[in-house]
Order: sequence, then C-alpha cells, then structure tokens
Amino acid sequence: MELIEPTPRTRVRQHAERGRYDRQTVHRIIDAAMICHVGIVDDAQPFVLPMVHARIEDVLYLHGAYGSRLLDALRHGARACVTFTLLDGLVLARSALHHSLNYRSVVVLGEGREVTDAAEKWRAFEAIVEHAVPGRWTEIRPPSDEEARATAVVAIEIREASAKIRTGGVKESVRDRDPQVWAGQVTLATFALGLVGEPELAATALPPPSVRALLTRRLDARRNAGNGA
Amino acid sequence: MELIEPTPRTRVRQHAERGRYDRQTVHRIIDAAMICHVGIVDDAQPFVLPMVHARIEDVLYLHGAYGSRLLDALRHGARACVTFTLLDGLVLARSALHHSLNYRSVVVLGEGREVTDAAEKWRAFEAIVEHAVPGRWTEIRPPSDEEARATAVVAIEIREASAKIRTGGVKESVRDRDPQVWAGQVTLATFALGLVGEPELAATALPPPSVRALLTRRLDARRNAGNGA
Repeated sequence: MELIEPTPRTRVRQHAERGRYDRQTVHRIIDAAMICHVGIVDDAQPFVLPMVHARIEDVLYLHGAYGSRLLDALRHGARACVTFTLLDGLVLARSALHHSLNYRSVVVLGEGREVTDAAEKWRAFEAIVEHAVPGRWTEIRPPSDEEARATAVVAIEIREASAKIRTGGVKESVRDRDPQVWAGQVTLATFALGLVGEPELAATALPPPSVRALLTRRLDARRNAGNGA
Repeated sequence: MELIEPTPRTRVRQHAERGRYDRQTVHRIIDAAMICHVGIVDDAQPFVLPMVHARIEDVLYLHGAYGSRLLDALRHGARACVTFTLLDGLVLARSALHHSLNYRSVVVLGEGREVTDAAEKWRAFEAIVEHAVPGRWTEIRPPSDEEARATAVVAIEIREASAKIRTGGVKESVRDRDPQVWAGQVTLATFALGLVGEPELAATALPPPSVRALLTRRLDARRNAGNGA
C-alpha cells in the first residue's frame, strides 16, 4: 500500500478513523466521481464550482473556456482545492443528532498548471471523455486543431491529498438502541434512467456500445469494481 | 418573479443564457440537493468540504462539531461559498468537445454567523433532519440539551446568489449532425436502492413512513415537484 503522506492540511481531524491515505483509495474515489467541486480564492473570497475531470496517474485534468474566471485563475497557478464526493447512503438513527451519511470523499490541494503541450492536451481530452463515458473516445470526432486551441486545459498534481470514508450502520448510545424502533441505512445509487436521442436521428441510428453500457451499471461505482468501498 | 439581484461575483459569465436569478429557482435547487460543497479560505488556501444543509426562507443552516476547522471558521464569520449541484444528464455529441452535462447548480456567497439562540438552533436541527428525510423529525428522539450544546450551528444568509441550469440536447455544428450517428442525452437519477436494518432490530420493527417514502421517489428531485427544471 503506497501512502500519500498526510500534511497538517489534509490529515482528517474530525472522525480521524475515517481518514485514508493510500494512493489507490484516493485514485478510485476520484475515478468513480462523475464531477468534482473546485475551490479557488479571488480577492479573499472563495469560489466553488462544479467541473468534470479526469485523472492520468497522479495528475488531475480540468478543462474549460478561456476567459472563465476559474480556468484563468488556475492557468495562472492559483491555489486550488478539488473535492470529490460520492454519497453512498443515509444513516438513520433513533436520535436526531446521530443521523449521518455514508460517503466516500477526497480532497486534493494543489496549484494549477496550464497544459500547453499539444500531446498532453490531447491525452487530457481523451481522458476527460473516457472518464465520463468509458469507450466513447473512439466513437466520436476528435477535436480539430482550432477546437483544441480554443479550449483551456489545466493540470493539478495529486501530491497533497486525503480520502475520508464512512461506511456501516448507526452509531448511537445503548440507551437509544430500542430493538422495537427501526433504525438503519438507506443505500443510495445513481443510474442512467434512459436515453433521449436528437430529433434529427434516423430510425436506424442506434446508441453505440459506450452509451448502451451506461444503462447497465451504477454510475457512482464506475471503474470501481472490486474496491469494496 | 422575485429576483436576487446578481452582482459582478454571481452573474453567470460563461454561457450567460444559463444564468437564473429568481429566488424560487435558487431555493428549489438548494432544497433538491442532498448535500452542498462549502468553500472557505484559510491562510490563502481554499478548502472545500461536503456538508449537509437546510434552508429556512432566506437562510442556509450548516452544522458540525466544535473544533472542526470549517465550522470554527464559519462561526467566526469567515467568507464562504456554498455550492449546490444536481447532475441531471450526460449530453453526448458526435464531436468530442461538444459533449456536455445537464445540471442545476447554485452558488451562494456569504459569511457565517454562529447560531446561539436556542430556539433558532432547534429549528435548524429540525430543518436539517427534515431536509434529508422529510417526515423524519417526529419519528425520532429530539436532541437533548447536552447534545444541542455540543453541536455548532452556523447560518449563512442567501443574499448574494445565482443559479445556473443547462437542459436539453446536443449543441453542435450542422456539419457534425449526421442523422446516421446516434447523439443525445443520457438522463441520470439518484434513488434509494434499499434498506439495511440495524442488527438488533426485532422482526416486528418495520421502517416508519418517512423511510418507506424514500423508496418511492427520486432523491434528486425531492420537494421539487412542479418545478419542471
């Protein structure tokens, strides 16, 4: 088990027993999350925005339009916090303040670096599409030179990071544990409900394999098989 | 339609047509989101953490342990950004860079205020439980004085806020719109998969109405009926 050494900023303090610092756990949560929340500081004000992402080894990739406040800040090396959260269940106790959630989360602290190398940018585009819909990249028209140039890509190294995971049932005092009163977990999952084709589609234009595959698995457990988390 | 006047910090700049500034839309997205992501700044470093929340009129409530870095900062009036994101679908184009997501999101910029009034704190506890599981509050043991005193509650006024919503299908160039190639939306939804009762439960201890109700509806559309968003 390879550790990502916790720092005073990433060591889990509240419920320290939920902290995880092994690289594989961190990577799996990042990969299973469809989106992340990226925080930056602008003039002493925090801003947090949802973004799609991809990971290649120890690097996170984000993309967006030039001129976006968030992307521009990251391109210029802004400090960032990128947070990934998978909500796995509600934990329903018999007492109000022992209600809880089961979740897997990761916090990455780092700095943005603009990706200017064309080959690295291309790999990032591919990784972002494949992260959202595995198998999709080979089904679609790749970016033109013009499209690629018009899109900003930012890399953030996964060097300072930690995971926090809660699993299991209710933790409450023995006095509250009345066996006659129901308490337990409600497990949650995100699914693809269905497809809405574009209006111009020919009747013979069927969804390709990557799209059909989305309909058969939980989206919050993508690429996460065998993790057991 | 009552507007929340956009500021230079909350006016949507990228895809300005997706910005929404009416109070009802902002409130509905906040209410439909099970969790939020709260950003603060500590020593010039942004931190973003997932939290549960509730809304009462124009006030957001968050809670947590005394001693938590995030709660302590908010209690002392830290500037915060609270972001709510509901992922409604994947938008799968024929071209890589026109892939997109359908989502509803809200950003609230504000400052924390510690809730010290016992009655307001009680209303916040009730709202947080009811937000996660409607109908749950009357089924459970309410907080004891000791439990209430040991839990920090923070309020943030919803004064500076905006929503951003994407709906609909693929936007791509006419040249890419080959009717023989499938393109469209994959709609997403979060459900309660099932229940896991605590091991000590008597066979006669059945899930109460609030818990059974969770199994019959989409969790990402809670209290959101009729919104049409």
